[in-house]
Amino acid sequence: MSVSIDDIRAAAAHLEGLARKTPVYTCHTVDDNCGAKVFFKCENFQRVGAFKFRGAYNALSQLAEARRAAGVLTFSSGNHGQAIALAGKLLGIPAVIVMPKDAPGVKIAATKGYGAEIVLYDKHQTTRELLGAKIAGERGLTVIPPYDHAHIIAGQGTVALELHDEVAGLDVLIAPVGGGGLISGCAVATKVLRPSCKVIGIEPENADDATRSFKTGELQTVNNPDTVADGARTPSLGKLTFPLIRECVDDMITVSDDAIVTAMRFIWERMKLVVEPTGAMAYAALHSGALDVTGKRVGVVISGGNVDLDAMPLLFA
Amino acid sequence: MSVSIDDIRAAAAHLEGLARKTPVYTCHTVDDNCGAKVFFKCENFQRVGAFKFRGAYNALSQLAEARRAAGVLTFSSGNHGQAIALAGKLLGIPAVIVMPKDAPGVKIAATKGYGAEIVLYDKHQTTRELLGAKIAGERGLTVIPPYDHAHIIAGQGTVALELHDEVAGLDVLIAPVGGGGLISGCAVATKVLRPSCKVIGIEPENADDATRSFKTGELQTVNNPDTVADGARTPSLGKLTFPLIRECVDDMITVSDDAIVTAMRFIWERMKLVVEPTGAMAYAALHSGALDVTGKRVGVVISGGNVDLDAMPLLFA
Repeated sequence: MSVSIDDIRAAAAHLEGLARKTPVYTCHTVDDNCGAKVFFKCENFQRVGAFKFRGAYNALSQLAEARRAAGVLTFSSGNHGQAIALAGKLLGIPAVIVMPKDAPGVKIAATKGYGAEIVLYDKHQTTRELLGAKIAGERGLTVIPPYDHAHIIAGQGTVALELHDEVAGLDVLIAPVGGGGLISGCAVATKVLRPSCKVIGIEPENADDATRSFKTGELQTVNNPDTVADGARTPSLGKLTFPLIRECVDDMITVSDDAIVTAMRFIWERMKLVVEPTGAMAYAALHSGALDVTGKRVGVVISGGNVDLDAMPLLFA
Repeated sequence: MSVSIDDIRAAAAHLEGLARKTPVYTCHTVDDNCGAKVFFKCENFQRVGAFKFRGAYNALSQLAEARRAAGVLTFSSGNHGQAIALAGKLLGIPAVIVMPKDAPGVKIAATKGYGAEIVLYDKHQTTRELLGAKIAGERGLTVIPPYDHAHIIAGQGTVALELHDEVAGLDVLIAPVGGGGLISGCAVATKVLRPSCKVIGIEPENADDATRSFKTGELQTVNNPDTVADGARTPSLGKLTFPLIRECVDDMITVSDDAIVTAMRFIWERMKLVVEPTGAMAYAALHSGALDVTGKRVGVVISGGNVDLDAMPLLFA
């Protein structure tokens, strides 16, 4: 396999003292509703507000010395962009983040705040891939993709490493799926640390490419899917993540946008945690009843908490 | 004094395994902004979403056997009402909560959900005190006030007991002030456990009765103050809390509603914690610059996280 438990343990060593060992939460009401013991791994408390920091920092910390001075480039208006920006700052590696010029001002400001160079582009004139490749080529930058990269996957796998370390005897581990970096890293770790634990990925109904890929064995894609879970709008799994998911993930389930928003609201109101829609997706499978976990010990990854509060009324409308 | 460290330690023993030992959070950005080490005691994660459970459970658990069967009564449309309802349920003590009939449906439902009997009243026809006294008299119920009660104060003091136990060497402890139960319990504990630590209470500018009482030595009142911090709209300190505050609290500071909302938004967005306006009040004193804590180790009590998400757009508008 392209990523092993040793890679994940090496990532954990790189992240020691830099990434947060995020807390694990429990909630009486959730346990009563599910008839199970549910353990929430709260990556909304991770640096930059999402698990993405783990992979980004791991990838940059393992960058060859010769490539560090020139710097790195990524395209992301989301959590991965901020994660690369902060990792670059901490490691003294210049970072260029390519973002659409209509990205929310608050995201541009946050990424800039971590000291990254922002390149804005017009979606009507070019694609981020073309522009990114051009800039990277001209300036000798290393491109760090958001999920299809062994060091990224290994970094995200430290989420499961920490969770199994803190919570013994899990029967099921549930995580959201976008490009598959988080679920594949977590699945690789789980199959070694707790082989009897089922790993289940959750996707939005409207962006079910990974579920279809998993079930058919052929890589499926989606194009600009309409879902509230912006972290799961990725067009397809990757060359590394797809085989890892086929090999180590036990099942894939989809949830509706309504179920995601209902679960998100429950987590805000009852658990007092600010989570983003993608961050509520794994729990949505339990809350909606799509996944029955009666009598089991269940790990649920809350992947992130970056929401635009000004957009909240729309989300909860 | 009406409440001693022994009373607080006894409360902690009663709460063992029933109240949550709430987590202490830190945030790089807060530390950088304040030039200090800030430790947030997160009572928004307490049962019923606020510190109030500590006092309520402690009071009910120490109720004389003869009074338990008849039950208890309180008037509160807020966190104390829910706290009494849950404590009653856990201890098998019937609880009657008197609430205005125009209280938000979600609060009535939550309180009812803990198994309490709800009595709704019409504000135009009677007062909650009159109605509550009538019902309590007729049915032999024990009235449990929200703050002016030695067992309530001792219960709230366990917040500071836990914080000093987890974080050594605090220089300052900051807490919000409504009726004074939380701050007086915390101050009594702090003056014994860490005498050099200053205890500072925070109030809204528009509901500054406790600050005026503290500074003048005469009990001052407010009447239906206009502030976003609904937990601090209490008309005055109590017969027990006022002397304790005069003796053990070092200073009182007020913050504007704007400062409270700005601090609350920061805590939601950056720290990913759902906090209510009163819960953000103590940190608002730091965030706004009203209180300078440069170079210090500072404990900040986040008192609760019960907000009506439907009202959020108004709050943040």
